[in-house]
Amino acid sequence: MRNLLAKTLFALLLLANAAFAADPLPSWNDGPAKQSIINFVTKVTKAGSPDFVPVPERIATFDNDGTLWSEQPMYFQLLFAVDRVKALAPQHPEWQTQEPFASLLKGDMKGVMAGGEKALLELVMATHAGMTTEEFDKTVKDWLATARHPKTGKRYTEMVYQPMLEVLTYLRANGFKTFIVSGGGIEFMRPWTEKVYGVPPEQVVGSSIKTKWETRSGKPALVRLPEINFIDDKTGKPVGINSHIGRRPIAAFGNSDGDRQMLEWTQAGDGARLMVLVHHDDAKREWAYGPESKIGTFSDALMAEAKKQGWTVVSMKNDWIRIYPFE
Amino acid sequence: MRNLLAKTLFALLLLANAAFAADPLPSWNDGPAKQSIINFVTKVTKAGSPDFVPVPERIATFDNDGTLWSEQPMYFQLLFAVDRVKALAPQHPEWQTQEPFASLLKGDMKGVMAGGEKALLELVMATHAGMTTEEFDKTVKDWLATARHPKTGKRYTEMVYQPMLEVLTYLRANGFKTFIVSGGGIEFMRPWTEKVYGVPPEQVVGSSIKTKWETRSGKPALVRLPEINFIDDKTGKPVGINSHIGRRPIAAFGNSDGDRQMLEWTQAGDGARLMVLVHHDDAKREWAYGPESKIGTFSDALMAEAKKQGWTVVSMKNDWIRIYPFE
Repeated sequence: MRNLLAKTLFALLLLANAAFAADPLPSWNDGPAKQSIINFVTKVTKAGSPDFVPVPERIATFDNDGTLWSEQPMYFQLLFAVDRVKALAPQHPEWQTQEPFASLLKGDMKGVMAGGEKALLELVMATHAGMTTEEFDKTVKDWLATARHPKTGKRYTEMVYQPMLEVLTYLRANGFKTFIVSGGGIEFMRPWTEKVYGVPPEQVVGSSIKTKWETRSGKPALVRLPEINFIDDKTGKPVGINSHIGRRPIAAFGNSDGDRQMLEWTQAGDGARLMVLVHHDDAKREWAYGPESKIGTFSDALMAEAKKQGWTVVSMKNDWIRIYPFE
Repeated sequence: MRNLLAKTLFALLLLANAAFAADPLPSWNDGPAKQSIINFVTKVTKAGSPDFVPVPERIATFDNDGTLWSEQPMYFQLLFAVDRVKALAPQHPEWQTQEPFASLLKGDMKGVMAGGEKALLELVMATHAGMTTEEFDKTVKDWLATARHPKTGKRYTEMVYQPMLEVLTYLRANGFKTFIVSGGGIEFMRPWTEKVYGVPPEQVVGSSIKTKWETRSGKPALVRLPEINFIDDKTGKPVGINSHIGRRPIAAFGNSDGDRQMLEWTQAGDGARLMVLVHHDDAKREWAYGPESKIGTFSDALMAEAKKQGWTVVSMKNDWIRIYPFE
């Protein structure tokens, strides 16, 4: 009997060693970015370490557009709105002459963009409001099942970053709760984040429009209204984190000026912290854009703050072995 | 070796049987209320059953005031506001003549109530806004550590319902995620729900005031503004559930007309559902109040709906062996 116990313990020891030795981030090149993530996780999870953080406090937040999936040639949610306008156009003959719809239906996205924020808001409201939450959920799922990215020809949910999927898994394996905190629409993300990222709907924070309780065909329904409820961007991100999570993250991942305050809020807490910015510098395998970009702006000021504060800047070109899972 | 395996398996079997046989709700008298809870949990967790619900979909929501803890002689959060006004009065000499503060400081709660909703809102804003989220968190914790209930002399966090603590634990042991969905202030509950109910801050939904990002003494802070953000009551409860959880609950627990739409929203989903209302009918051990009550109103219409829809109505007097853990 003692022999069996010894054998069993030895086998368990081997397994434990193997698990320990396996690289949790195989799509990352060795370097300071990968090392900073592993060092952080190691120290906050080591019992007795001065940096130890109890499991319930292990909160990590991730921006979505440009941090977990691509955002070029424009936010994928905007491509969804464009496709929805085209699909709904037969029911809206007035759109043929009414901006920004007229430009969009002629394929003139520059004309749409010329209308600025007001035009974009009109597009979003025309395509995101007026139906129940369940109808919108189905519309998003149907679109994702058929739509293809104009450049890669892949489904949008395939254009997620393999190295970040590994970070999500690695953090959860170490007792972290992973949240998405995105400027994108909360109801646009929830239908697919659980399947694609392993992040359940209740751990998604985003921008939203108001909803209203109604009885439709004798059944209760929540109807989506053409009215902004909350913009989860810039200073809105800490506000959204406080409202939805109610705890300060100890790790935060972003890629643009819209994530600055989320990282500052994360850093301002006590104890060990991890702040990460993904830098889009890989024109060959993804896109390269920085301060000049209309979306996902990574300003010089943000880069300067990252350096000054010791944040981790990930070079997609140098730090990532693979970009997408399908590669 | 086979002998050892057999012995081990047999021991495990005994343990499993013991766990199965143990009563998960020992503070509940046998009866239809207890039975409806156990039947529901049994059928949604039984693999292969037509009512089986996968773990991620096992969402249960609980009202707080009158469902998880007492709410008499008034909402405990209002008693907190009263104590805060008294504590802050030296810094506000104008309150001596200004309503509703003047009445409150004279101990005339009827005078306060005469000011209606407007007066209550003023009390809440004067005591809940103007400080950072961290300062408010500390204020709540400090109050709970010292304040005592006027009738029982117990701490407020001791006046939680033992039978409901058992339901929370029972559901979680069966793969449920338990949420609070309360008309009370979200930031008034979060400082203590994890310790008292095992419900972490990110699983608390409630009413809220707006917050604003500011830099204070060179550090980022969220400052609480005297402006309503969201009222999580009545039709607001399904809206709050959709906003924070993003899934429809399969079980919901309440005690008043404020919970009606939460229960209706829960019931309107597909598959097995559990809707429970706690009825305050125990004047001896707790309080007895119904349609005539100013708070926690359980109207005749609600009782009629519960009967018609087959909701479970819990009689505190008959269904609960114990009310509070300290009994």
